[in-house]
Order: sequence, then structure tokens, then C-alpha cells
Amino acid sequence: MPRVKNFNAGPAALPLPALERARDEFLDFAGSGMSVMEHSHRGKEYEAVHDEALALLRELLGVPDAYDVLFVQGGASQLFAQIPMNLVEKGRGADYLVTGAWGEKAFSEAKAATAMLGASARLAGTTGEGEGKEKRYVRAATAADLQVSPDAAYLHLTSNETIHGVQFAVDPARPFPDAGKVPLVADMSSDFLWKPVDVSRFGLIYAGAQKNIGPSGVVVVIVRKDLVAAGRKDIPKIFQLRTPAENKSLYNTPPTFGIYMIRNVLAWLKGLGGLGAMEQRNRAKAGKLYGVIDANPGFYRCPVERESRSVMNVVFRLPAEADEERFVKEAKAKGMVGLKGHRSVGGIRVSTYNAVEPAWLDELCAFMQDFAKRG
Amino acid sequence: MPRVKNFNAGPAALPLPALERARDEFLDFAGSGMSVMEHSHRGKEYEAVHDEALALLRELLGVPDAYDVLFVQGGASQLFAQIPMNLVEKGRGADYLVTGAWGEKAFSEAKAATAMLGASARLAGTTGEGEGKEKRYVRAATAADLQVSPDAAYLHLTSNETIHGVQFAVDPARPFPDAGKVPLVADMSSDFLWKPVDVSRFGLIYAGAQKNIGPSGVVVVIVRKDLVAAGRKDIPKIFQLRTPAENKSLYNTPPTFGIYMIRNVLAWLKGLGGLGAMEQRNRAKAGKLYGVIDANPGFYRCPVERESRSVMNVVFRLPAEADEERFVKEAKAKGMVGLKGHRSVGGIRVSTYNAVEPAWLDELCAFMQDFAKRG
Ligand SMILES: Cc1ncc(COP(=O)(O)O)c(C=O)c1O
Ligand SMILES: Cc1ncc(COP(=O)(O)O)c(C=O)c1O
Ligand SMILES: [Mg+2]
Ligand SMILES: [Mg+2]
Ligand SMILES: [Mg+2]
Ligand SMILES: [Mg+2]
Repeated sequence: MPRVKNFNAGPAALPLPALERARDEFLDFAGSGMSVMEHSHRGKEYEAVHDEALALLRELLGVPDAYDVLFVQGGASQLFAQIPMNLVEKGRGADYLVTGAWGEKAFSEAKAATAMLGASARLAGTTGEGEGKEKRYVRAATAADLQVSPDAAYLHLTSNETIHGVQFAVDPARPFPDAGKVPLVADMSSDFLWKPVDVSRFGLIYAGAQKNIGPSGVVVVIVRKDLVAAGRKDIPKIFQLRTPAENKSLYNTPPTFGIYMIRNVLAWLKGLGGLGAMEQRNRAKAGKLYGVIDANPGFYRCPVERESRSVMNVVFRLPAEADEERFVKEAKAKGMVGLKGHRSVGGIRVSTYNAVEPAWLDELCAFMQDFAKRG
Repeated sequence: MPRVKNFNAGPAALPLPALERARDEFLDFAGSGMSVMEHSHRGKEYEAVHDEALALLRELLGVPDAYDVLFVQGGASQLFAQIPMNLVEKGRGADYLVTGAWGEKAFSEAKAATAMLGASARLAGTTGEGEGKEKRYVRAATAADLQVSPDAAYLHLTSNETIHGVQFAVDPARPFPDAGKVPLVADMSSDFLWKPVDVSRFGLIYAGAQKNIGPSGVVVVIVRKDLVAAGRKDIPKIFQLRTPAENKSLYNTPPTFGIYMIRNVLAWLKGLGGLGAMEQRNRAKAGKLYGVIDANPGFYRCPVERESRSVMNVVFRLPAEADEERFVKEAKAKGMVGLKGHRSVGGIRVSTYNAVEPAWLDELCAFMQDFAKRG
């Protein structure tokens, strides 16, 4: 079967060169006579891969020395609990800014995690409108949406809401909020490494790998060293961020093959010109798509406010659900898959992560024009 | 490079047919035009793999209906904390039977996890001799080593101590202990699926995948449904065992490629005749090795008592450390790797997991005979 055009929201398309590299040495890694996944995580062959992945993350993002870069397991969902377990204290709870479903989940787990430790989590702001099934999120937050407690342990936000297609810092009018001295904690699962980021603006950044940088099973955490050092010690060692920080993320067996794939993806990304080049490429891809949507206002409708429109997950509706079903089906017949919106909101979602080829977008846009014309 | 003979302790050798299957369809899984790791965890293509892996576990082990089979992330080390977090209550602490370094770690994390929740963990028995650097573990426990609290939430043990080469239930004289009504919880990370096991004797079995059944990044948990149902609800959702139990281990994104590899390994295991056949094969492999050790008593010395000698990790010493270094080096030159003992105990360790070929053992045994003769 020829390679399909994969617009999955995650796990998602990976760069073909990164996959081919893995395929070609799958049985014999670096001339060692075994697969990379059969190597000990304590051996020099795997360690070289591990170190290279960490170094590439530092290099591509320009991570300052005052930050640790960690590999953690459990998915981004585990970090929803693990971050408050590390960072809250009695009288220093956690603040949450919610701009979509993932922010809601992060807040919900933070409530459980903090209650367990005699602390608390607080809603510092939300852009949600309506209630229950009618709840809508159509924009990133502004300063007016937010009231940070000056003594909060941190302020958490979701930089890109994967389901609602709402992203911070795409437009200068919707920057990451200023929380003063309160450290910003950002879930960048679905927009990690899509463009350069000033890491020093954050106390902690985390991202599940399975959208922009690898397969599922690894979470990258970038965290200020002083926050790690001040973290709670009365929780199990495996959950303390100081544990991977002090052991180069080799305290216990890491997901070695996943980290190897991340290495391959980051090497490809660097070869393509790094994050600056990637931002141009991603903005062009999403720009084309929003262009077609806006050019057909009677047919396609993006619910998200212009300044908050995600460059990673472009969501839109068609006149009727039946049209959306036909859209997905016809696209699939043309080798374009993964276009169905999240089951909780419906509609169409086009995920345009780093590995999604510009040519795929051209093809999709041509199809969309034609589909709208046919009506 | 031709395939080496890989005796790594974990991550470890995987069956060549399972690896080749993955390599052959790495770029085009089941004719879908993408890699299995690019598939959505909510799509039917991945779901078929996930379901098959779960079904094969049930079938191979004969798991009773009263048990859930789960995939969890974080490594077996995370379960050291997660199990007590689910199962203890005030006044119903956890009991630990320690027969090696992994049992020590499990107990240590249980102390932190239970303290956080106002409960406690207690040493119910140990076979450790000596203190600190001189601490030795040379046998599984007997009834005489153990005092279970009748109101314990569970009794934890490590069925095979990977570092010390000490295993329960290899010999009828060293069966799994009888804890009466207290559920047995067993860390089977390094001897999972090496032979048939009566699951109904356990409340919970867990195992990191990276020794006998797949790559690192996945833990299999087999747990009695009533224990899941009675588990604590005041911990974050991601840590509650009921979360994967109620969501077929698809609450959040699972490590899809790791589970796919497990499927491939289990299919191979079934094709070879299942766990009965595997037990014969494994006993023959380890038997040969211990035979060579015992036939050269002046040269090789296994510190483990005969009834507790592990069928999975065969540990032994040579007359001097210099001999051990030479042994590892010469073996490596002959394509036999992963023979160095764990850094905490030294010596030689031969891991003879399911995927380790009988022919590799023949070659290693011949080398050992020759090496001993040369002295
Ligand atoms: C923004 C965001 N955060 C968190 C998650 C949860 O990630 P995981 O499934 O790895 O737990 C997702 C998954 O799609 C996501 O998009
Ligand atoms: C018996 C046993 N338990 C637990 C572990 C820890 O597993 P992980 O590294 O997946 O946390 C190991 C690792 O070797 C082990 O052998
Ligand atoms: Mg998802
Ligand atoms: Mg949010
Ligand atoms: Mg290990
Ligand atoms: Mg033990």
C-alpha cells in the first residue's frame, strides 16, 4: 500500500526518513548484531542514543543551563497528577487556566493530587462558554480572563488544545500570559517543537511525544532546576522529578525504543533547518487550510477566533453532519485519513504536525475547494 | 553484523521472528499505508492488535474471568508505588517479603506511598544475610521466614530476583508462600510467562515487559477484579487500577508500539507450544548451565542455594575478578554478550529468558568448559 496522507491527532504521522532509518537497522543497530530495543539501557550503544536525544532537545529549543530535560513515562495524563505532586505545598496550591478539554482534565487530576497531599488546586481562569454538552472553547485567554494568586506554586495552561483547535502564542495579540513571579507550567503535548520557544518564560514545559516528536510512551519534561530541587520529598521516588533529573532519566528502564525514535525524528528536524524553518513550514500549511475555509464561508466554518486558531489542529464544521461524514469518506478514498473530529465535539479536525508534508495539505485543500463547489 | 547471542538482563533478546515481523511491516502495517506507531490508539487497526495482545495473555496463562489484564506505563518501578496507593487503608497496611534487591526497592517505595496516605508498609520477612555492602541473598523464603499480619492488605514478593538469581517455585521445596486470606502480590518482571502459573493463587501479578515479553515501556498487570473495585478512589485517576480496567487500558494513549511488539512475541510463544513447552525449554537451558557450574566446583561457584536457583538469571563467580573480566571479554569475542553481573554484586549473570535460544546455551556451556580447563 502506498503511504497514506495521515492527519491523525496523535499518535500521528512520523517523518518517513526517521521511520526508514529505524526500519533499515531494526535487526542490527549500529552494527551491534541486535535490535536497539534488545540493548541494555545501561550499555554504551543505547546510552549514545539517549544522550543524543537529550542533546538535540537542548540544541533545537536552546534550553538554558538552569533547566533539566527529562524523559518520563505514563503519558501527559500522568504529568497532570505528577506535576502537582511535586510542586504544591500547604498554603501554596496550584492555579489553572483552562482553555479546553485537556486543561479541564489537567485541573481535575490536580484537584485529586493536591487533596491527597493536603494542598489544593484552583481555577484561575477559563475561556469556556456554556455548560455540559454545550460547553464551547473558541479562544486562548487574555490577561482579562486570568486572576493568578500571588502565592500559587505555579500557573498551569495548555498551550494548544488539541480537541478544540485553540492555541496560545500564534498571534501577537494572544501571547502566553504574564503570571509575574508565579512559574508558568505548560502542557505543550500537541505543539511541542512546532516553532522556537523562549524556554526561560516557563517554569516547566511537558509534552507527550506522540504528536510532534515520536511514538507514544514517552513524555518530555523541561523544568527549572530550582523547582526540581524544591520539589516535595514525601512522595514515592519514582514520581519525584529529581529522580530522572539526578539519573539522566535512567533511574529505571526508560522506554528505549521510543527515545530512539525521538532521536531519529529530532535528527530529521535539525536536518530540515531546525525550529525556525519548521515554523515557516507549519504556518504555511495551516495558512493554506484556513485560507480555503475563509474563502468558502457559506460551507466551511471554523468556530475558533482568528487570533487563537491553532497551527497544529485545524478544526471546522460543514453545513450538516451528513456532509462531514461524506467529506471524511471521500477524502479517505483519496488516501487522506485521520480527518474525523474528536468524538466529544464532532466536525472535522486536520492535524498538521511537523511530519505532515506540505504537499499533503495542497492535496487536501484542492479536495476541499472541489468538495465545497460540489456542495 | 550477524546476530549476537544476547544474554542481557533486560531490555533483553527478543525472538527473531517477532522482530522480523515488525521490520517487514514497519512502514506499512497491515496494508494501511502507515506504520503501526502512526495509527490512532482509537482506530480499528491498532485496536485489533491491542485486543489480540490482551487475549493472548489470557489464553497463554489461563487467566480466570475474575481477573483483569491491564497494560500500564512507568515500568515495574512505578508499580512499586502504584500498588500500595491502590490497595492500602488505615489499619490495613502492606506486608513485604524480601528476597533480594528488587524486593528491597519495592518495600522502600511502599513505605513512601503508604506514608503519603496515612497507612504503612511492614517487613513480613526477609532472607537477607549481613548488612550494607556485605548483604547477601541466596535463597527464596520458606514458611519459617515469614510472619504475615492477618489484616494485611496484601503480601508482596518478588518471584524472581533478577540481580541475585533467586527464584520462587522452581523447586517443589520452595513454593510461593501461603498467606492464608491475605492476597499475594507478585513482581514477576523477570520470570513472567516462563512457565504455566496458577493465577488464582495471586491477588495481583505484575511484570515489566522488557525481559520475557517485549521492549521496555509497558507493564502487564493481572489483578483480581474485587481488589480493583475495592481500590482507593482518593488518588489521581491515572493511578487507579480501575481506570485501565474500565477502559480496556485505553484511558489515555498507551505505548502502542510496545504493545504491538508484545503481541508479536506472544504469537511466537503460542506457536512454539505455549507455556508448557516454554518451561521444558527453559529448564533444559538453565539445567545445562548449572550442570557446567557444578561439574567445575573448583572454578565456578553459584552462591544461590540449589532449591532457589533461578531458571531465568543464572549467577556465578569465578576464582578472581580478573578471571571474570577475561571471561566476559573472551565470550564477547565469540559473539556472546550481556554476561556481566549487575554492578551491585559483580560476577557473571547469564539471563536465559524465553527468547534466548537453546543453541546459544550450548555454545556458552562449551566455552565455559574450555575456559575452566584453561583456568
Ligand atoms: C494537549 C494534550 N494534553 C494531554 C494529552 C494526554 O496525553 P496522553 O494520552 O499521552 O496521556 C493529550 C492527548 O491527546 C493532549 O492533546
Ligand atoms: C524483578 C524486577 N522488578 C522490577 C524491576 C524494575 O523494572 P523497571 O526498570 O521497568 O522499572 C526490575 C528491573 O530489572 C526487575 O528485574
Ligand atoms: Mg489522544
Ligand atoms: Mg487549558
Ligand atoms: Mg534493569
Ligand atoms: Mg523480594
